[in-house]
Amino acid sequence: VENRHPSARGLLQELFPFSGRSRIIGITGSAGTGKSTLVDGLIEEFCKKGCQVGIVAVDPSSPFSGGAILGDRIRMMRHSGNPDVYIRSMATRGHPGGLAKSTCEVISILEAAGKDIILLETVGVGQDEIDVVRMADVVCVILVPGFGDEIQAFKAGIMEIADLFVINKADLPETEQAERQVRVMLEMGEQKKALPPILKTIASQGKGICGLQKEIDRLFVRLQSDGKETKRKNRVSWMLRDIIVSGIYSSVEACLSGKAFDELVEQILKKKLDPYSAADRILKGMKG
Amino acid sequence: VENRHPSARGLLQELFPFSGRSRIIGITGSAGTGKSTLVDGLIEEFCKKGCQVGIVAVDPSSPFSGGAILGDRIRMMRHSGNPDVYIRSMATRGHPGGLAKSTCEVISILEAAGKDIILLETVGVGQDEIDVVRMADVVCVILVPGFGDEIQAFKAGIMEIADLFVINKADLPETEQAERQVRVMLEMGEQKKALPPILKTIASQGKGICGLQKEIDRLFVRLQSDGKETKRKNRVSWMLRDIIVSGIYSSVEACLSGKAFDELVEQILKKKLDPYSAADRILKGMKG
Repeated sequence: VENRHPSARGLLQELFPFSGRSRIIGITGSAGTGKSTLVDGLIEEFCKKGCQVGIVAVDPSSPFSGGAILGDRIRMMRHSGNPDVYIRSMATRGHPGGLAKSTCEVISILEAAGKDIILLETVGVGQDEIDVVRMADVVCVILVPGFGDEIQAFKAGIMEIADLFVINKADLPETEQAERQVRVMLEMGEQKKALPPILKTIASQGKGICGLQKEIDRLFVRLQSDGKETKRKNRVSWMLRDIIVSGIYSSVEACLSGKAFDELVEQILKKKLDPYSAADRILKGMKG
Repeated sequence: VENRHPSARGLLQELFPFSGRSRIIGITGSAGTGKSTLVDGLIEEFCKKGCQVGIVAVDPSSPFSGGAILGDRIRMMRHSGNPDVYIRSMATRGHPGGLAKSTCEVISILEAAGKDIILLETVGVGQDEIDVVRMADVVCVILVPGFGDEIQAFKAGIMEIADLFVINKADLPETEQAERQVRVMLEMGEQKKALPPILKTIASQGKGICGLQKEIDRLFVRLQSDGKETKRKNRVSWMLRDIIVSGIYSSVEACLSGKAFDELVEQILKKKLDPYSAADRILKGMKG
């Protein structure tokens, strides 16, 4: 599926009826918040309860980022011998057909494979990552004490999509201060819903993970009544939109490069043409 | 222009012949690297040399992010009374027509206004920000000591687009270590060009800013011979592509929402239809 093999579409169509069954938990936060250690602990908790767990980790994909992230992945690998656990890393680059579509596809495969729980982990808090993690049913945002001046969590809408905050490394000083800051931020924001809970963990020592797992369960119970269907509907809408846009894109891609495009660029550079009139020419050409 | 007033397009077409004159300097780095203080210092240096300076600051636009960034902007405001300096902040959200297009438009206005230097500053190192900053002729990446385990700079291609690295807050311990790390990272990467220089600054004390300005000048001199035309060509290509895509998008937008779309989503949720077949129906409808 990730390689876009011609047979992928047919397989996904066959798998589709088996989708929509899993609990999808989004986990996001800046690098350095101990997110992967926390995910590692959550995998263990869910396995203990007899759940099948799938992990989709969406990574930035610069060749340079390999080191740090690989380390985290290796840590998680201790679960990789467990047949109840499946871990899949995806790069955010190289998905021009839309990250929503790609992520939904991987999720639907894990759902069809019978995973009860899908942990959708994103590395970093860029817009791409937020667009991914918002596809989850329940979104956990991981912070660490001392983030105040780093606005690590407050970028581009992350506060708005959080259902739960986790302050990890809660043995550090400034933990109480961090909690207060999050609370103030949340109270400042326009909230249509109840303020999300704020939990404290020390993932490296396994502290607070059991409580986190229980809180996530509670959020799902609350979600059942109203939200899960809406979340699934949003997910389907994003995916459908992505499939359509990538369909259009691939049919016009030829017009966005190639000789005719280059000639227009040359004319713009020579100031014989402005970019808007050039675009009109190409758009007219498509319709013709 | 940013409000997409109907008259904007005509004005931009009129301005277009006056574009392509300025030196565009991209400045990027994580929050907390002192980027804005550095930009502030650069403004002063360029003004001293008699340059007209324009600043385009591309911000993440969560309402929650206002605080920290506003502080930086206010610091820069000391230049706002200077008629040679013009500062414009842009949000990364709300530009569905493509951030490349919006940024190019703002740049072309500043070029037409006679700015010799345009500082294109992005907050954060997400993919959006990288896509923006790569439109500059020369790209400076700002780091601080101690970033090693935070992979702040190594995300999604930032190393590949840097023409110059600045280690700011160079009075902190670990400065030498940071410099070594960058060097190692650069040597690890596949480089088609010479390794970019690494400078050290203490922007809060004004140290190293003059040297930075001179290094940027040197990079432009080197760029004249081969690169500036290529950079401008890339910029025009990205802009043209964005104008075309947003043209297509606005003509199909109606199909990506509305009643017919919602009905298809409902059918997918009921599993009467899979998303791929649903997309086909809409795509066929468009061509018809």
